[in-house]
Amino acid sequence: MSFNTFGKIFRFTTWGESHGPAIGCVVDGCPPNINIKEQDIQSELNKRRPGQSKFTSQRKEDDKIQILSGIFEGKTTGTPISLIIYNKDMRSRDYETIKNKFRPGHADFTYLKKYGIRDYRGGGRQSARETASRVAAGAIAKKVLENKLGKKFEVVGAVTQLGILGCDTKKWNDKIIRKNPFFCPDKSIIKLWEKYLLSIRKSGSSCGAIIEIRARGIPVGLGAPIYAKLDMDIASAMMSINAVKGVSIGAGINSAQLTGEENSDEIFQKGKKIKFNSNNAGGILGGISTGQEIIVSFAVKPTSSILKKRKTIDKFGKNTSISVKGRHDPCVGIRAVPVGEAMLNCVLLDHYLMNKAQCG
Amino acid sequence: MSFNTFGKIFRFTTWGESHGPAIGCVVDGCPPNINIKEQDIQSELNKRRPGQSKFTSQRKEDDKIQILSGIFEGKTTGTPISLIIYNKDMRSRDYETIKNKFRPGHADFTYLKKYGIRDYRGGGRQSARETASRVAAGAIAKKVLENKLGKKFEVVGAVTQLGILGCDTKKWNDKIIRKNPFFCPDKSIIKLWEKYLLSIRKSGSSCGAIIEIRARGIPVGLGAPIYAKLDMDIASAMMSINAVKGVSIGAGINSAQLTGEENSDEIFQKGKKIKFNSNNAGGILGGISTGQEIIVSFAVKPTSSILKKRKTIDKFGKNTSISVKGRHDPCVGIRAVPVGEAMLNCVLLDHYLMNKAQCG
Amino acid sequence: MSFNTFGKIFRFTTWGESHGPAIGCVVDGCPPNINIKEQDIQSELNKRRPGQSKFTSQRKEDDKIQILSGIFEGKTTGTPISLIIYNKDMRSRDYETIKNKFRPGHADFTYLKKYGIRDYRGGGRQSARETASRVAAGAIAKKVLENKLGKKFEVVGAVTQLGILGCDTKKWNDKIIRKNPFFCPDKSIIKLWEKYLLSIRKSGSSCGAIIEIRARGIPVGLGAPIYAKLDMDIASAMMSINAVKGVSIGAGINSAQLTGEENSDEIFQKGKKIKFNSNNAGGILGGISTGQEIIVSFAVKPTSSILKKRKTIDKFGKNTSISVKGRHDPCVGIRAVPVGEAMLNCVLLDHYLMNKAQCG
Amino acid sequence: MSFNTFGKIFRFTTWGESHGPAIGCVVDGCPPNINIKEQDIQSELNKRRPGQSKFTSQRKEDDKIQILSGIFEGKTTGTPISLIIYNKDMRSRDYETIKNKFRPGHADFTYLKKYGIRDYRGGGRQSARETASRVAAGAIAKKVLENKLGKKFEVVGAVTQLGILGCDTKKWNDKIIRKNPFFCPDKSIIKLWEKYLLSIRKSGSSCGAIIEIRARGIPVGLGAPIYAKLDMDIASAMMSINAVKGVSIGAGINSAQLTGEENSDEIFQKGKKIKFNSNNAGGILGGISTGQEIIVSFAVKPTSSILKKRKTIDKFGKNTSISVKGRHDPCVGIRAVPVGEAMLNCVLLDHYLMNKAQCG
Repeated sequence: MSFNTFGKIFRFTTWGESHGPAIGCVVDGCPPNINIKEQDIQSELNKRRPGQSKFTSQRKEDDKIQILSGIFEGKTTGTPISLIIYNKDMRSRDYETIKNKFRPGHADFTYLKKYGIRDYRGGGRQSARETASRVAAGAIAKKVLENKLGKKFEVVGAVTQLGILGCDTKKWNDKIIRKNPFFCPDKSIIKLWEKYLLSIRKSGSSCGAIIEIRARGIPVGLGAPIYAKLDMDIASAMMSINAVKGVSIGAGINSAQLTGEENSDEIFQKGKKIKFNSNNAGGILGGISTGQEIIVSFAVKPTSSILKKRKTIDKFGKNTSISVKGRHDPCVGIRAVPVGEAMLNCVLLDHYLMNKAQCG
Repeated sequence: MSFNTFGKIFRFTTWGESHGPAIGCVVDGCPPNINIKEQDIQSELNKRRPGQSKFTSQRKEDDKIQILSGIFEGKTTGTPISLIIYNKDMRSRDYETIKNKFRPGHADFTYLKKYGIRDYRGGGRQSARETASRVAAGAIAKKVLENKLGKKFEVVGAVTQLGILGCDTKKWNDKIIRKNPFFCPDKSIIKLWEKYLLSIRKSGSSCGAIIEIRARGIPVGLGAPIYAKLDMDIASAMMSINAVKGVSIGAGINSAQLTGEENSDEIFQKGKKIKFNSNNAGGILGGISTGQEIIVSFAVKPTSSILKKRKTIDKFGKNTSISVKGRHDPCVGIRAVPVGEAMLNCVLLDHYLMNKAQCG
Repeated sequence: MSFNTFGKIFRFTTWGESHGPAIGCVVDGCPPNINIKEQDIQSELNKRRPGQSKFTSQRKEDDKIQILSGIFEGKTTGTPISLIIYNKDMRSRDYETIKNKFRPGHADFTYLKKYGIRDYRGGGRQSARETASRVAAGAIAKKVLENKLGKKFEVVGAVTQLGILGCDTKKWNDKIIRKNPFFCPDKSIIKLWEKYLLSIRKSGSSCGAIIEIRARGIPVGLGAPIYAKLDMDIASAMMSINAVKGVSIGAGINSAQLTGEENSDEIFQKGKKIKFNSNNAGGILGGISTGQEIIVSFAVKPTSSILKKRKTIDKFGKNTSISVKGRHDPCVGIRAVPVGEAMLNCVLLDHYLMNKAQCG
Repeated sequence: MSFNTFGKIFRFTTWGESHGPAIGCVVDGCPPNINIKEQDIQSELNKRRPGQSKFTSQRKEDDKIQILSGIFEGKTTGTPISLIIYNKDMRSRDYETIKNKFRPGHADFTYLKKYGIRDYRGGGRQSARETASRVAAGAIAKKVLENKLGKKFEVVGAVTQLGILGCDTKKWNDKIIRKNPFFCPDKSIIKLWEKYLLSIRKSGSSCGAIIEIRARGIPVGLGAPIYAKLDMDIASAMMSINAVKGVSIGAGINSAQLTGEENSDEIFQKGKKIKFNSNNAGGILGGISTGQEIIVSFAVKPTSSILKKRKTIDKFGKNTSISVKGRHDPCVGIRAVPVGEAMLNCVLLDHYLMNKAQCG
C-alpha cells in the first residue's frame, strides 16, 4: 500500500507541492552499474517544461534537476536515487482568489473534504507540477532499459487527437513529433491544430486530447497473469496522470465493435521470426507482452482552469462563480506526452525486473 | 508485489486452473462481525455462471461455493476467508486439438514463451473461469459495504454496447437489467440484440461489448492522490478482467473532444446538499470520490475462440491454421458484467478502509 | 500490506482455523518448471505432525496434503499453488470449558478485544496448527532452492536448549537430529532431556526452548540494504511463529558482550576462496549474505496451556482461574524446528529472487 | 517489496550516502491536521547527533532538518512529507585508505560482491548516518501518536547493558536517562560505565550494548495475527538498525528457561480495569498488544571500525590487514537508543492505522 509510490521492484516515490520550496522523487530498486548523468534526466524534463511555446503555460521554471544520492562516479550503485527540483517562479498571489472557492473540474473540493486541510497555492499537491518527478524517474528507467534491451528499444509518444481534430496515425512519423509544439506525429494536420488551439485559447476555453505511446523492442514475456498484467499496470500508470479519464490498449475501446475474426491477430512464422498480421492486441495477450509494439492511448480531459465563468460554491457552502485567471495550458494533454512516455518506461522496467525475478 | 493478489487492505488471492480439481480464493483484511452466508456469495456467482442462456457457454458448472475459514457462527472474524469451488464439467478432450497450437487472440503463445510450460486444458490459468473467484470475493466486499455505507449503497452493471449496437444509456433501468440475458439496461433494444447475437453465433463468429458499472451511495473522500487514485485502481481492476482492452471513467475517452466549459461539472449547494450540474468526472476528481455516482465503463474484445478458421503457428514454429470448437460464449462481454461489479465492490471497500486508516 | 501473507516475490498466504473444515495456503511467485510432488511436501509435514512421540501433542492428524493448482504434469507452471489439509481429529468439546475464559499466555484476550469475536475452538486462527501451512510452503521453497543452488544447499534446524538445559552446539551432528524426538543435535544430552521433559510433563507444567537453524550453500549477495535486509526478514519470519519471543543472528544477543576484535570476523583468501576466521555475523553483514553458513536462533516460550491452575478473568470481566486440559505439547519449541526451517527456506528463496531481479 | 521503505500505511523511504550532498526521507501516509514544526523533529535528531560527548563519534554534524513538503501552515496535509539534511563535515580523505580493503565486520565486502560497485566514502549507504532519517520519521510518528493516544502515550529507550556490564532494570528511571551520555536508566552504574568505556576506547577497541525500549499508553488491539504481528514488525524494525544482531520481546530469549507457570502472565480485574500480574509477554500476545507496557530489547554488536589491527583481504583478493582510524564511536549502541525509539514509534503508528482500517 502506498499513496505516493509507483511500481513494485523499480519504484519511485514523489513528493512536493506546486508552491512549496521544491519537488522531487526517490527512485528505488534501480539496477547497479548503469551510467546516468544529470543531463540524461534534464533532457527528458526539458520536453515537459512549461513556457516553451505559446500553447503551454507561461510559468517559467527551468526545472533544473539535482541528483542527491544513489549515483557514484557516474554510475548507479543500487541504492536509492534522490532527485530534487527547486521551485522558482511561484506567483502565489495568483491563487489568492481561489483560496476559498472550489474550481469545477479540479480536486479542490475532494481534497478539502477528504483531508480537512489543503495547500491551495497553485493546487498544492494536486498540481500537474508533480509530473516533473515522474519524468525524472522515467528518464532513469529509460537508461536502464536501453542498457538491458539494446538499441531496438524505444518509447515514443504523440498527441493523436487535439480536441475534435484527430490526426491520421497511419502517417505517424517519429521525426515530426519533436519538431512541432503539439508532439503531433502527422505533418499534414499541424497547421490546422495551430489555428484551432489559438482560437480555443482566445475564447478563454480549453480542449482535451488523446495521447498515444508506443514501445518498441520489448521482448515477449513481460507481464504476469491475473493481477500483475502488463496492461493492468499500464492502465493504472496512465490513469494516475492528472486529467486522464480513459485508457486503451491496442484497438482498445474500438475492439468492442469488432468481430472475433477482425480482432484476433493472426500469427505466422517467417524465417525464424514469429510475426503477427495485425496488432489489435497492442502487443499484449493475457497480460503478457507478445514481442510486438506495445500501443497504449489515453484521453486527457480539457484544462479545467478556464477564463470562462463557471458556477461553483465556496468552502463555506455559498453558491458563487469563478473565472480562473493565471498561466494555464489551453490543452494540458500536450504536456502529458513526455509524462506518458515516462510512465510507460517505468512500467516496462518494473515488469522486466519482475520477469527476471520469477522466470529469469 | 503480487502476481495473483488484488487489493491493498481488503485483498484477495485467487488460484486454480480451468481443468484442475478446483478453483478458489483467499480473502484477507475483511472487517470482523459482518454477517455472511454461503448463499450471499452463491447468489452473485449465479449471475456469472455459464450455461444459463443460449447466449453464453454451455459448460455446465453449478459453481457451488464452500466457505472453508474466516466465518464463525455466521459472522466474519477478521481472519482470512477461504473459498473453494470444485470443478465439475471438465471435458478435457475438447482441448486436445489445441494442445500444440496457439489460438490467435489468446494467451497461449505468451504463457508458453514466458514460463516454458503451460496447462493448456481449457486455457488453464488464462481461462475466464478464474473470474468466478473474483465474483465470490466481490460478494463479500458488497456485504461489508452494505453494512458500512447503508441502504443507499449499490453497485449495478450493464452491457451498454453489444458489438456495433449501442443502447441508449439515458433509458437505463436497473430493473430491466436482471430480466434479460444480456444485462441490457434499455428495454427498447433487447430484441435487436437478440437477433444480432444469434446471427453472430450462427456465423461462427463473435462480438465485443461495452460494460458500464455504476456505484451509488459512495461518500466523498474515497481515493487518495497521485498513486492511490480511486480511478487508477478502478482502471487497474477492470483491465485485469480477461479480454478487457479499454477503460473509461465518466465521460472517459469522449472527454478529449469536449471544451473546458462542456466538461467541468459545475457545483452548487441546494438546501444543505452539495450537488453537481453534470457528471463528466464519473464521480471522481483528483483521484478522490466526489459523492456523485461513480461511473466506469470498459470494452471487452470479441471472444477469440471462434469457429472461423484463423492462421497461426504451432509450438514447434510451423505455420498452420485453427478453428476453435467447444462451448464458447459468442460475446464474453455479457458474463463480464457481474465480474466488473465484483471488482468495483472490491476497489470501493479497499479505498473505504484505506481512507479510514489515514483520515478516519 | 498483508495480514496473512508472507514474502515479497515468493509469497504464501495461509488460511484456516484449528477446528474449521480445513487449513491451507496459496503459494505465489514460484518459478516455473520445478519438479514438485505431493510427497515432497508430505515428508516435510510429517516432521511437524503431532502425535509422533510422547513429547508432543496427542492430537492425531495425518496432515495429508493435497495440491489443488499450479502444478501440471509434475512441474510448477508459475501460477499459484493452492494446498489444502482437511482437519480430522477435532475434539471441539475439549474447548467448551475455555469458551468464555482467557487462557493466560494465549491470545484469547487480545483477539476478542481486537475483533469483538473469536473462534475459540482449539484457539481458532491463533492455533499453531496454522504452521502446517508454512511447512508446506517451505517444502516448495526448498525444492526451488535445491534446483537453483545445487547440492551444497541445505537448511537444518535443531533444538539447542530445552528449558534450562542447553546442549553443546560444538557437537552438532546433522544425522543425530532426525533420530531423536527432540531434534537435538548433541547425542550426549538426549537422555537427560528425556528425563527432564517427562518430569515437566508429569508436573502438569511446560518448558521453553531455543531453536537454531543453519543454512549452507548460500551465495554471497542475498539480502538488500536498509529495509530489505536478509536478517530483518529472517527475524520477522521467526518472530511470526507462535510463541517465539526472541531472535538472534550469529552471535546474536551475546555480541553485546564482545569487544570489536572478538566480534568482527577476519577475512582471508585461501587458494581462490574467500574465507572467514569465525562466524559471529551468522553469515550476514549489512543485511547481505557473506557466503558463510547462515545461523539464526530463536527462543520459544513454554506452552501456555498447562494443567497447573492460573488466575485469569472471563470475557464478562469476572476474576476466575483456569487449568487447561487437553492434548498439549509439554514443549511447543520442539515442533517449531520444522517450522523454523520452512520459514528460513521461504525467506532465502524470496531474497534469491529479489537479488535476481535487481542484480541478476 | 521495497528496499528502502519501511512501514505499511505510515511509510517512510530513506535515501542518501554518508558523504553525498545530503540525506533525507519521504514520509507517506501521515494523517492530516497534525501540528508539526521543524523543531519537533530537530529535538529528536539532537539526541542522536554525533559529537555530543567523548563517548560518541567526533564528526561534527549539526544535522539541521528542513521540511520540503507535506506541511502547510504548521499542519500535516496528508501528502508526503519530504525531509532533508545536508551533509557538512565530510572528511573523505579519511577513507582513502579503506577504498580497496574490506573492513571486517562491515558490509564493504557484501555490498561490493552484490552490486559490483560501492560508494566507499564513509561507508556510503551502509553508514549509520542513514539512521538520522529514521529519527526524523520517528519524530513525526511520535507527534501523531501523541495526538491520537493522548498524554499517557510515551516511548522511552535506554542502554541496559554496556559491553559486559548490565545495569539493574528494576532501578529504571526515565529522568536519569537523558541526563547521562549513555542513556543509562540506572544511576548507580553510570560511573562504572564511564570508566569502562574510556578504557575500551583507550585500548583502540570497542564494545557492544543492549538497548531496551518501552512504550506506554498503548491500547489493546494493535497488531494482527500471523504475518502482521506487532512483535514481528518490531523485530524487523530493530533488526534493520545497523549492527543489531538480536531482538527480544518481554522476557525474550530468557523465556526459553521458564516454565509455563513462571512465564504466562496471570490476568485479573481490579475495579473496571484489566491488569496482569507480570509482563513476560512484553505487552504482546498472539501478535496483538495487550494494553500493558510494550517492552523490546535488542543487542548491538561492538563497533567494527577499531584501531586494533585485523586481518582482511583487499578487493583484488590479496591478504592484508587493516586498522581503522577516524572518528568512530567506541560503542555504537549508545546512539542506537533514539533510533530504536524512532523505529518503535513508527511501528506503533503503522499498526494504529492498520487497526483503524480493519477494526476501527
